This record gives sequence, C-alpha cells and structure tokens, in this order.
Amino acid sequence: MFRDAWNSVSRRRIALVSAVFMFAGPVPARSAGPPVAEYTLANGLELVVIPDHRAPVVTHMIWYKVGAADETAGKSGLAHFLEHLMFKGTAKHPAGQFSAVVAAFGGRENAFTGADYTGYFQRVPSEKLKTVMEFEADRMNGLALTDDDVLRERDVILEEESQRIGNNPRARLGVQIDAALYLNSPYGKPVIGWRHEMAQLTRDDAVGFYRRFYGPNDAVVVVAGDVEPEQAFAFAQETYGKVKRNDNIVPRRRPKEPPPVAARRLTLADSRVEQPIMQRAYLVPSFATAAHGESAALEILAHVVGAGSNSRLYRELVIDRQVAVAASAWYDSLALEMSKFGIYAAPRGGVSLPELEAALDAVLTQVKENGVTDEELERSKNKLVADAVYAHDSQASMARWYGSALTTGATVDDIARWPDRIRAVTGEQVRDAARRWLDLRRSVTGYLVKDDRPPAERHL
Amino acid sequence: MFRDAWNSVSRRRIALVSAVFMFAGPVPARSAGPPVAEYTLANGLELVVIPDHRAPVVTHMIWYKVGAADETAGKSGLAHFLEHLMFKGTAKHPAGQFSAVVAAFGGRENAFTGADYTGYFQRVPSEKLKTVMEFEADRMNGLALTDDDVLRERDVILEEESQRIGNNPRARLGVQIDAALYLNSPYGKPVIGWRHEMAQLTRDDAVGFYRRFYGPNDAVVVVAGDVEPEQAFAFAQETYGKVKRNDNIVPRRRPKEPPPVAARRLTLADSRVEQPIMQRAYLVPSFATAAHGESAALEILAHVVGAGSNSRLYRELVIDRQVAVAASAWYDSLALEMSKFGIYAAPRGGVSLPELEAALDAVLTQVKENGVTDEELERSKNKLVADAVYAHDSQASMARWYGSALTTGATVDDIARWPDRIRAVTGEQVRDAARRWLDLRRSVTGYLVKDDRPPAERHL
Repeated sequence: MFRDAWNSVSRRRIALVSAVFMFAGPVPARSAGPPVAEYTLANGLELVVIPDHRAPVVTHMIWYKVGAADETAGKSGLAHFLEHLMFKGTAKHPAGQFSAVVAAFGGRENAFTGADYTGYFQRVPSEKLKTVMEFEADRMNGLALTDDDVLRERDVILEEESQRIGNNPRARLGVQIDAALYLNSPYGKPVIGWRHEMAQLTRDDAVGFYRRFYGPNDAVVVVAGDVEPEQAFAFAQETYGKVKRNDNIVPRRRPKEPPPVAARRLTLADSRVEQPIMQRAYLVPSFATAAHGESAALEILAHVVGAGSNSRLYRELVIDRQVAVAASAWYDSLALEMSKFGIYAAPRGGVSLPELEAALDAVLTQVKENGVTDEELERSKNKLVADAVYAHDSQASMARWYGSALTTGATVDDIARWPDRIRAVTGEQVRDAARRWLDLRRSVTGYLVKDDRPPAERHL
Repeated sequence: MFRDAWNSVSRRRIALVSAVFMFAGPVPARSAGPPVAEYTLANGLELVVIPDHRAPVVTHMIWYKVGAADETAGKSGLAHFLEHLMFKGTAKHPAGQFSAVVAAFGGRENAFTGADYTGYFQRVPSEKLKTVMEFEADRMNGLALTDDDVLRERDVILEEESQRIGNNPRARLGVQIDAALYLNSPYGKPVIGWRHEMAQLTRDDAVGFYRRFYGPNDAVVVVAGDVEPEQAFAFAQETYGKVKRNDNIVPRRRPKEPPPVAARRLTLADSRVEQPIMQRAYLVPSFATAAHGESAALEILAHVVGAGSNSRLYRELVIDRQVAVAASAWYDSLALEMSKFGIYAAPRGGVSLPELEAALDAVLTQVKENGVTDEELERSKNKLVADAVYAHDSQASMARWYGSALTTGATVDDIARWPDRIRAVTGEQVRDAARRWLDLRRSVTGYLVKDDRPPAERHL
C-alpha cells in the first residue's frame, strides 16, 4: 500500500541491482538488548516480542506465511493484489479508517509482499499497540470487498507494475533473469505478477486467496518497541486471540527445482538504457534448504566477493583494472526453497560487457582456486556480526528480520545463533561454497544493453 | 505403455531434433476419401469416424483433453503416469486383460501423452471395434489402483525418463530449451515430468487426476477404418454412452506467456556428446492462438527454411557452404497455447557452433529481407497438400491427426479446410511471418557440447 525503500514486492530485483548487504541475513537476539519473547496463541498465531524501551514507540508487524509463490498458475500477482485490498475495510471499519487512525496517532504504516510472505506494519505510540492489533485482527478474516474496490485497485497495481518494472530497464532485466533461473519453482514469477495476468484478476480470485491463506494459524506477529512481553501477549490474546483458526490453511509445499545443468544467458535491449550492465544469478541454497554451515559460508562469500569497496570485485574491476564503474555481489538467505547468489557489474565507457564478464570471471576463479585470505575472513565476520548488532538500532529492521526469517523456515533460536554460525565459518568452507555453488551451470547471466533501433522497429 | 516412434511423451523434443515435417499440421478431410462423420453423445463424448474400407481393420483411439499442462505445480509427470496406470485394470477386468484381448485379436495398442492430451489406441479387426470400445468405456471411470500397482509403475516411468531424457543428451538439451523458452506456461515442463517430482507421485495423486479429468465430456473418440459411421455411432452409444458425465471437468484455461523480450542462450555440456549441435526454439502462435492465415504462413516458412534437402538451411549450410552436416526447421501448430518454431543444425568437423550459428542467421536474415521465391512457395504448398493427401494411406496417421487437432482447439471443419489455408498463403505473408516471429527476443538458442572434464569433476 504505502511503500518505502525496503518494500519487498520487487525486493529480489532491487537487491540484485543494488546489492544491499543489509538484507542478507537474520540478526542475533541474544547478542544485544533484552531477550526476545515468543508465544503461541491457542488459535495458532505466533507472537514475538522484541523489547526496546528507548522511546515510547512500538512497531507492530503481522506476517502471513503466504506470498507470490502460493499463487495458482495463471493468477500471478494475486498475493500482492490482496495486500492492497486489505486496506479496503471490513464490516466494522470502513475503507481508510485504519490508515486514518494510524495517521491521527502520528504513526506510519506499510505493507509488503514477497514470494514467501505478506506483511503489514504500523509504527505507533506505545499506548496504541492494542488498537492496531484490534484493527489487524478485524481484517484478518473480516475483509469486505466490492467489485468496485477490486477494479479500482487493479488499476493501481497495474500502474505500480509499470512504474516498478515496465519503466525500469534494470528491473525488467531482473524479471527475465529470475524467469530463466527457476525452471520449475514459482520463484521464477515476478512477485508483482505478469501484467497480462494481473489485468484479469477478479474479486473472486482475491476473496478465494484470502479465505484459503489468511488466518491466525498462518500468522506471525512481531512487536518491537516499548512494551513488556507479557503486556503484548495479553493484548494479542484479547485481540488476535478471538479470531477463529482457518482450517483451509495447510502446510506450504513448494515445487522444487530440478538439478540445474545448463548455463543460461540472456540479453535485454531497452531504448532507455544509458549505462549497460550485467547481472548474474546462481541458484544456491537458502538458509532453509542448506546443509549445516553452508548458508553462513555463502554469506561470507558474498561479503568477500562483493560487499563494498573493499570487496574482491570492486578492488579488482573498479580500482585496479578500471574496467567497471560498479561491481558487487549479494546473497539472499531467506527463502523456503532454493535462493539466489547475485552478481552485478557496470562497465566503464569503452569496455564491452563480454570483456567485463571475463574480468569478473577471473576474480571468481581466483576465489575458487585459492579461497579467501584470513584477513578477509575475519573482516567479513566482524562486519556481518557488527551489522547485526547495529540493526538493533531500528525497530523496523529488527521486526522485519524476525518476520522474514520466521516466515521462511527459521526459528527464533536460528536467528539468535546466526552470529555464532557466521563466526564458525572456515576459509575452506568459503572456498568450497564458491567451487560448489558458483558453477555456471547453476546460473543465468543477463546483459542489459541500449536498444538503438528506431521506435517503429521496436515491437515489444 | 507400449510405444512406437510417434509416441508423444517426448514428441516435442524428438521433433525438435529430427524435424519430422509430417507432424506439422492437420490434414484435409474433404480432399480425399469418403466424408468424415462427426457425432456428440448425450454425455458429451465426441465421436469422429473416418471410413476406410481397404482392409477389414479399424483403428480406434480415445483422446482425453488433458495432458501435462494440466498438472498441479509440483506434480509434473502425473498425466503420463496416469496413462501408464490406465493399464492396471478395473473392477470388471483385471490388469492386463485388455492388452491380452487386443493381442489375441492379432491387434496392436499404444498410448501417448502430450502437453494438451492423453490418448489410447488399438488397431483391431473391424468386428472387434465394439469390444475395444467396451474396454475403453469401462476404464474411463472404473480404474482400480492399488498402492502396489502405483509403486511398481512409478519405477517404470522413472526408468523411461532415464532412457528417453537422462541418457539422451539431445533430449536433455530440448528439456532445457523448453524450460527457458516458456517463462509462465506449463509447456516449459517436460511432459514426462521432472524426475524429482515423478519420484514422489502417489496413488492419491493419480486417482485425484483421473477423477478430475477423465470422463466422456472430456473425450474425443476417433475411429478410422472399415466401419460405417452409423454403425460406429451405435457401438459408441452402447458402450461409451453408458458412462456418466464427469462434473469435475471444467474448460481448460492455460496460463499465457508474457511478451518475450530477452533473447536467451544456454549451453549444455554432456560427456556423451560426440557430435555437437545447436537448436533454437522461437515462441510462435499455434493454430489455436494465431490470427487468420498466420499459422499456415508459419507452416510454409518452416518448409521453405528447413524441410528436407531442398530447404534454404540445408542448401546453404550443408551443400553450398559446407559448415553443417545437418540443418532443418519445423513448426508445431498443434497446441492450445503459444507453440514453437524450431531450428536444428549440426556443424561439420572443425566448424565452431558460433560460426555455424552466424551462417544460419544469415540464411534467416535473407528470408526476412527478401522473402521466399514464387517457386519455393509453390513447391512448399504442393508438398504440404500432397503430404496431407498421402496421409490417408495410414489409418493411424489420420486418426492421430484428427485427435491431436480436436484436442488442441481445432474443429473437423478446420482440418478439412487446412489445404485451402495452405494454398491461400502469399509470399508476403511468409516474409512477414519470418520478420515478426523469427525475432531473437522470442527465442532460446541452445548449444550441446562435449563435457571434457574428468568424471570426478562432473557433478551433475
């Protein structure tokens, strides 16, 4: 609905482009701040409370364990469409009232959809926590939609698609790479949907999806802020506790990828491209699908290879050889099924994409052959663990990390042990992860180039 | 179950490799032989009778309007698995009895699965037609499956997958090309299934699919041979007519492809490759999705470009420039949704795949720029129409063409008018089809090369 930079409708794409390392992993609970409390209500709703008493503010998020990967074939975009429609009001509260109340509190709200989750959040004064819980509990099964609501909102999501994807050549490249990377998994679809399918979504589709997937037994509520855990639990029982379990909800089973065997490449030409770029994505394990230690090794690998100006790619391609103006790598650990390791580079003027790619592959080959240095290993570990500690500074970051981890197969304990897992990674594990996972057969390499044909000849 | 060369489990792949033009289009009904008769039973079953009295034999086929594209995500291979399980017997007839009876008649039988249909056929002496109809009607809703049947047959389909795909590098390439060509459509999955999903299929999956998709209102019976239409209709009423309509069956709606915008390439390395090859597939309209005349223009285009030793590709690449040892093109018009135009070439020793591809693209550019000659146009039309007439020689070919056309959106009348549509194509239409559809952005180009690494380093 209202969105900010970390909105995840197109997070996978945005992250691929900008290599925002902050998104890479869960954060520790035990290493800083008071302990995180965890409850489960009788109706199945999970509650996680992260106390933070620095200011009289709470961040309240509800995460549903449903996302774009749960959509029926032919109905892409439905999870995100429903996210929008959740603001349309209920029998008790007319459309707009919830948002107006949050605004009147001086609060803010947002919502986001990913492949594996859909979330809603409000940041409000602490004493308003129960009020927002009441509103959220009400719309958990009380949503009232008219055909008119649905049709008007469909135009909104189509416009959003134009803005985020259609008018954004780099996002378009990301969509094409994902579609070529995943041969069987629904992760290959854009979270926002294929436009031709979005345009056909109906009220029945939205209501059917809502009834099938929304309910307390599918939800994780994360409260970060100025509240005692027991108090938050009491509020949750008085609000969410009254919502009936939804017996339509069954455990999620995602189609898995076949073994990737063929290196793929694609070229997207777009007339709006001023700076050509290349991106590559490798199919790699997520935290949920990785063997012990493997996901943490991929975190370190991404950091050494491509996080910041001290990374191998940046030093080699941008500083030393001067063939690139940007180069980075990232790893997304949070997905129920196989995830992605991404690489991004933009050539300096006069350097062709194949030249840049050859230089980039030489950097990766170095890591595969010789591993990383002890100094790189230590620096990465320190930075990753420190980032996790600093994350406590932001209620929203903390709540988001817990929510995204808990809806993609991790536990509160997994989050707590994340720094230990990072610290335990050895140089051999990082080198082995590079050898095993940065295999071109697991990858799609995409070039984004300028489309120089006259407009009449471009029939996209 | 028992298979012959035209089995369609992997027909899309086989066709891509061998460019068997015979598969390309429907055949005329009016141009030769007695008229084709068409009936619909009260329970919805369609019957098509193609009289052919040259020998006292009939070919009986039942085509269900269900195939691999109807499978639920995560259950790939189910349509084909059920095809196998249909031979497991019913309450009335124990497993193997139907096949034994056909064999005792001196007949033969077969079964096949495609993306859009599943079919069963028997060729038997004319006087046995009603008997095979009785058996087919019985297993239309009387199938009895035990867990043991299912588990044993699952091993059979896994072995079939190994033989057809796993141990066949060219088929593996075809699977990868399809998966990269279709970004959203279920046509991207191999008809036989992804092996990891086939291994998990259960009796419940098979029974659920059977109950949802099999029934008289989903079936087309094609009888070709020594029988009077009214007699065949009477037999059908006495046998199939007794089967109750299946109200679970709803009209098929296939997810559509987004507009293809990025040229894709892939390389598959396999240690068993002795002759490297390249294949390319373009996403193009099927007869069912094409504008008027477009599908016929694509038939002619495929013929001029790549059918036989007089085709452009063969003459240019194999005879004149001697850069290839084989080169061909094909077009599959029969699909409910967007179909494929395929190109295949194998380089002569010493010629690299990129060199071959450049020569091949030069041939295509010629056609796009200058179209085809009047002589090529006439020759192609004559050959295509003559092929259709000659097809009457084979009961099985006739029945197969009717069945595959009628289960992919065509009518008996469409089949009858096919020669007229072919004859009406102009040179401009062929050139325009080349310009519009042979656009690299619509395509996947695949290279199959030898994997030269020592076995220990190949971790497929």
